[in-house]
Amino acid sequence: MKRDLQIHMDRLMRTIDKSADIGKLPCGGIRRLALTNEDKNMRDLYIRWLKNIDLEVRVDDFGNIYGRREGKNPNAAPVLIGSHLDTQPEGGRYDGILGVLAGLEVLTVLNESGIQTDRPIELINFTNEEGARFEPPILGAGGLSGHFDHQFVYSRTDREGKTFLDELKRIGYHGSKRNRIQNAYCYLELHIEQGPVLEHKNVDIGIVTGIQGMNWLEVKITGQSDHAGPTPMNMRKDALYAASKMIQMIKQTAVNFHHEATATVGRLSIKPNSINCVPGEVTFSVDIRHSHDTIKEQLTQLLIEKISVCAAAEKVSVQIDKIWESSATRFSESLINIIAENADKLGYSNQKMISGAGHDAKYMNRITPTAMIFVPSADGKSHCQEEFTTPQEIEKGANLLLKTVYQLANHHTNASFL
Amino acid sequence: MKRDLQIHMDRLMRTIDKSADIGKLPCGGIRRLALTNEDKNMRDLYIRWLKNIDLEVRVDDFGNIYGRREGKNPNAAPVLIGSHLDTQPEGGRYDGILGVLAGLEVLTVLNESGIQTDRPIELINFTNEEGARFEPPILGAGGLSGHFDHQFVYSRTDREGKTFLDELKRIGYHGSKRNRIQNAYCYLELHIEQGPVLEHKNVDIGIVTGIQGMNWLEVKITGQSDHAGPTPMNMRKDALYAASKMIQMIKQTAVNFHHEATATVGRLSIKPNSINCVPGEVTFSVDIRHSHDTIKEQLTQLLIEKISVCAAAEKVSVQIDKIWESSATRFSESLINIIAENADKLGYSNQKMISGAGHDAKYMNRITPTAMIFVPSADGKSHCQEEFTTPQEIEKGANLLLKTVYQLANHHTNASFL
Repeated sequence: MKRDLQIHMDRLMRTIDKSADIGKLPCGGIRRLALTNEDKNMRDLYIRWLKNIDLEVRVDDFGNIYGRREGKNPNAAPVLIGSHLDTQPEGGRYDGILGVLAGLEVLTVLNESGIQTDRPIELINFTNEEGARFEPPILGAGGLSGHFDHQFVYSRTDREGKTFLDELKRIGYHGSKRNRIQNAYCYLELHIEQGPVLEHKNVDIGIVTGIQGMNWLEVKITGQSDHAGPTPMNMRKDALYAASKMIQMIKQTAVNFHHEATATVGRLSIKPNSINCVPGEVTFSVDIRHSHDTIKEQLTQLLIEKISVCAAAEKVSVQIDKIWESSATRFSESLINIIAENADKLGYSNQKMISGAGHDAKYMNRITPTAMIFVPSADGKSHCQEEFTTPQEIEKGANLLLKTVYQLANHHTNASFL
Repeated sequence: MKRDLQIHMDRLMRTIDKSADIGKLPCGGIRRLALTNEDKNMRDLYIRWLKNIDLEVRVDDFGNIYGRREGKNPNAAPVLIGSHLDTQPEGGRYDGILGVLAGLEVLTVLNESGIQTDRPIELINFTNEEGARFEPPILGAGGLSGHFDHQFVYSRTDREGKTFLDELKRIGYHGSKRNRIQNAYCYLELHIEQGPVLEHKNVDIGIVTGIQGMNWLEVKITGQSDHAGPTPMNMRKDALYAASKMIQMIKQTAVNFHHEATATVGRLSIKPNSINCVPGEVTFSVDIRHSHDTIKEQLTQLLIEKISVCAAAEKVSVQIDKIWESSATRFSESLINIIAENADKLGYSNQKMISGAGHDAKYMNRITPTAMIFVPSADGKSHCQEEFTTPQEIEKGANLLLKTVYQLANHHTNASFL
């Protein structure tokens, strides 16, 4: 790579700022749920940006958007860069967005330098990575990689009963199956860490070796809804009281089980949800993660048993469904090593680490060699408006992406190492 | 009372059935929110019933409907009987309705027996007891008794922005202030218990000595919303985990504080409420009740302190607001004793008890000696379609009301004992 090939930080930050205006929240965050009007507005703007730098734009049948920069050898498998522009209900301005817009900056720099790489490069914005509106998450990359079949993706339904397909059509992003990528040399994703480790250790770059496995449970507790006044405390079957015991137990069990394990109750609803009614029904989720599938499964089984025991003790009935399951992912060792060498050459401190969060890279790893670059998250915060990474940290991540993409896109087009 | 003065149960049950046809729900319940078309239809039918037994009908400026049966001494203060015909969104067929329609049956029996009592008797259907459409509850009786001024009542607004006054006028029940009762000897209300105590103890009749005082708190916990995957368990500020500790503590504190106290967390919401997010904010209600205001206040203070201690221990911040307060009500001892004597004479097992729920009697107690008669609620259920009381239990309650009304309405018209 030429010594002067560098990210233009001002431009990248301006692009990130413009993205943050769409679905803007009062404290700097974004509400841009997948396939909403906000998502449509972001996509429309993004496509104008892709066209501004002369990329060839395609939209596939999952709404994934591709911007292709042609290589000297158009038939060579392209280097892929990507991430997502959708957010959590009260999301930050970097999660996913950084990967897409840093990719845009990488291609802009290549354009300005007049460089044509041997291989094509494609930049991808994946649909519904967050899963905050349509569950499960990572539907766009999961559909593209064949992890989910397209009927499964299309039939996902939000809380108002609207389907993925109807909403995809409504916002005008139901493209063609022919527009999916046909082949790929590798996939790279730059992302914020979403955890506190890099900041805590004062390290510039995380080189991600894989993604934790994850199980999601849905626990439905049925007690008895009674009038809060006339029902003595000892004659109640209070579903929320039972749930609160379980929430205590779930955290303590995870902490005692393995120091790297996490278990989170993130969603909870209650019926009838009235001040003067004893709650008769509570439904909550449990998110269980570990980088080793065996430990993840053991902890899940233990939690299921303990929830049942707790329900019996509180004289409520309980139904526990495993609603999602995801195996641990191991990324490409070749790619990990290339990224580590480049980080060293650039003088960036770096360490290998596992990702606690799922990413589009998880499913792309099924179809092409994949790896990820992490930059620090201030205070480890993510999925919240306070999410922050300094411009200096972003610059290092984006320059590392630039150097690595440039190198890979000039790999001999007959190379098969990856 | 003549030995043969008896409620006609078939007729009373037919009347209750006819009422249940207006706003009928599939599982036997009723949706008849105050001042809706259903309420209007019920009122129209009810007024036909009042006129059928030659009562003089009046409607006051809160829409309360009076049916007056003249006494030998028309200037004597009347004995009042009443309750309400409005329901919860998915209410039962007895709550409130029983008190009004049993009152109608009492007056019908007196008519058939050719008896004219010394005092007049007035039967009242109060507007918006439930508070399910217009908050707070008990607006009609509260307006009549002067607990609420009429501008407050008129300006109450439903979720669609419609006011009490506009809806009262729309259904044609905005009567005259002159039609309010001018004086009263006493007020009696027959009602279902809405709790499990009578059924549990196999007792026919509850003689209600008063209504519990009530405080409502709103507790807002602010922690830190983080991504559930990459945030180690020991670096979280989980608002739901903190809330679950408080919910445990609230129940245990109430149970230990006084055996009659209740504390209920009935409403709870969580942000961002996403499976893979550590909850950053939780808001919940606490409903605290006791029949002695001192104990209610002491328990409330203790809970506020303990919630704050718990928040500090969990490193979350907390805001606690008192959003509603209602003093305990003590009913007339003279009336309570008369009812108890009559229940004994009729051979009905009975016990004195406090009401956990509010009733029209709560505010009527401000202006005239008041008491209530409870009959059992199957499984303690109320505010739901499954609400049920057997005809045998209803018959006992209605006969006790008949005997007591007959006796009180023949109290010497110069008597001032009550």
